[in-house]
Amino acid sequence: MHPRLTLAISIMEAFAIFAYAISGLIEARKRRLDVVGAFLVALATAFGGGTMRDVLLSRRPFYWVQHQDYVIVIFIMAIFAPFLLRTTTRLFDQRALLIADAVGLGLFSISGTSIALDAQMPAFVAAMMGVVTGVFGGIMRDVLCNEVPLILRDSRPYAVCAFAGCWLYLGLDWLGLEGVYNVLASTGFILIARLVTLKLDVRLPH
Amino acid sequence: MHPRLTLAISIMEAFAIFAYAISGLIEARKRRLDVVGAFLVALATAFGGGTMRDVLLSRRPFYWVQHQDYVIVIFIMAIFAPFLLRTTTRLFDQRALLIADAVGLGLFSISGTSIALDAQMPAFVAAMMGVVTGVFGGIMRDVLCNEVPLILRDSRPYAVCAFAGCWLYLGLDWLGLEGVYNVLASTGFILIARLVTLKLDVRLPH
Amino acid sequence: MHPRLTLAISIMEAFAIFAYAISGLIEARKRRLDVVGAFLVALATAFGGGTMRDVLLSRRPFYWVQHQDYVIVIFIMAIFAPFLLRTTTRLFDQRALLIADAVGLGLFSISGTSIALDAQMPAFVAAMMGVVTGVFGGIMRDVLCNEVPLILRDSRPYAVCAFAGCWLYLGLDWLGLEGVYNVLASTGFILIARLVTLKLDVRLPH
Repeated sequence: MHPRLTLAISIMEAFAIFAYAISGLIEARKRRLDVVGAFLVALATAFGGGTMRDVLLSRRPFYWVQHQDYVIVIFIMAIFAPFLLRTTTRLFDQRALLIADAVGLGLFSISGTSIALDAQMPAFVAAMMGVVTGVFGGIMRDVLCNEVPLILRDSRPYAVCAFAGCWLYLGLDWLGLEGVYNVLASTGFILIARLVTLKLDVRLPH
Repeated sequence: MHPRLTLAISIMEAFAIFAYAISGLIEARKRRLDVVGAFLVALATAFGGGTMRDVLLSRRPFYWVQHQDYVIVIFIMAIFAPFLLRTTTRLFDQRALLIADAVGLGLFSISGTSIALDAQMPAFVAAMMGVVTGVFGGIMRDVLCNEVPLILRDSRPYAVCAFAGCWLYLGLDWLGLEGVYNVLASTGFILIARLVTLKLDVRLPH
Repeated sequence: MHPRLTLAISIMEAFAIFAYAISGLIEARKRRLDVVGAFLVALATAFGGGTMRDVLLSRRPFYWVQHQDYVIVIFIMAIFAPFLLRTTTRLFDQRALLIADAVGLGLFSISGTSIALDAQMPAFVAAMMGVVTGVFGGIMRDVLCNEVPLILRDSRPYAVCAFAGCWLYLGLDWLGLEGVYNVLASTGFILIARLVTLKLDVRLPH
């Protein structure tokens, strides 16, 4: 059905989902939400981007409908989050949130672009769908927690990294690079671009 | 078409819609919104959950498209809300908001689960759709009023009651209990679970 | 395909899109968002209403998928927005935001009603879809910027003007007035109704 979505991508998407879920749990912790509130925010963060993409592409079933086990694992994570995060408060600060976000950003954006291409979307729409998949979960997390979304607030490049990586994927795909290698290269590009611009404190103009 | 949705459920859904619309009007009142703002918040609260469920299930037409009379009644409620709520300020406080919510929560969650089952969804997805139907209207109400959604803020069990009731419905359905009795039993369970946990001040861990 | 959507309407929709995009850029400026944040808020403001309408009507492709050039122009506007808006701070105040909104409101609402009619929706739903198309972009803009949506906060008639204009369009359509003249008349009605009620400081009751 989806030749681009091989096992390697599935494994990487699992990592991305947990990275986003954790960023949701950290945000929920800051807002002092209870275990169910934290679970719902983690769920929205992890699956919001992909679900939005699938609604826009009229694509069914949703990822979380096909992979119910992820929902259950996130529920368990939410139950143990207080204990996990309480003992590691120093580790899971603003910085950890940014790194977990960067990991998810690359994987989600590229898988979103790949899925949009498989749905016969033109290149530009595929790149936009990649960015939507990458950033919409975080926007939902912040809207639910009543904050201006981090992606809008923070002038360090975020959506730009995702957008550039999606075009890299499209370019390498056009050049005929095989699916999995292309996903690895483009995802790595986004991850490195994000972490390097963070390290160098590159900022977009206001 | 929908054998599970008999007259009894339709009547109950009408009660649920008005309960949610009123909770929207109360929230709009607190924010000092005008009559149109109150109407839109009441509309989002009453139909937000069902519309979200139908978008996720690719189900059309929406409930409010088929039942335009409800939209008109809510509009009339919004016009008279200032007079209604002004004279009864003491009655319609935080407590009334919680009780109106509890009535709607049970009815919406079970009807959502029932509709998802009719759409051939697996049990787990049906339970999730029930919770979405039950809680998403309130989330929209609070996001529109620029608050962290009550469901996330409040550590008293809310989504948990809905989720347990949806599984009770699924269990009784699996045991072969007929539609209407099952709806009544499961809805009653959610209502009682919500009110009892409120009364006993049960709180979920942070 | 859509006999009601002639060239004249397309040109007017372009104006509406830029009017809404600018209102998004002004809001983004107030929040001190960077260029990408401003672009995303402008995009959500300009295309949020039409995209919501199309999701509700199960209509594809989206306007911004068919008209990628608009997305690119908005991106260029976002890049130059700091320079544009910085030099004209005095011009682009709250008042400019309200006028840009009024222009877009009329054009979007009527085009939304027209599209819903073409999709064989009943009159009431067509009027609601017009209002959704007109106001949802602004709601998304304000939710993203973490404010109670202007449409809910502000007691000056806004959605009411759009709703009345949509019914005027439906009435004139029923009387047999030809597409483009009807669009011009109804859009003009909304624009004038909005500006006149603003000038006279008409306010809806709380």
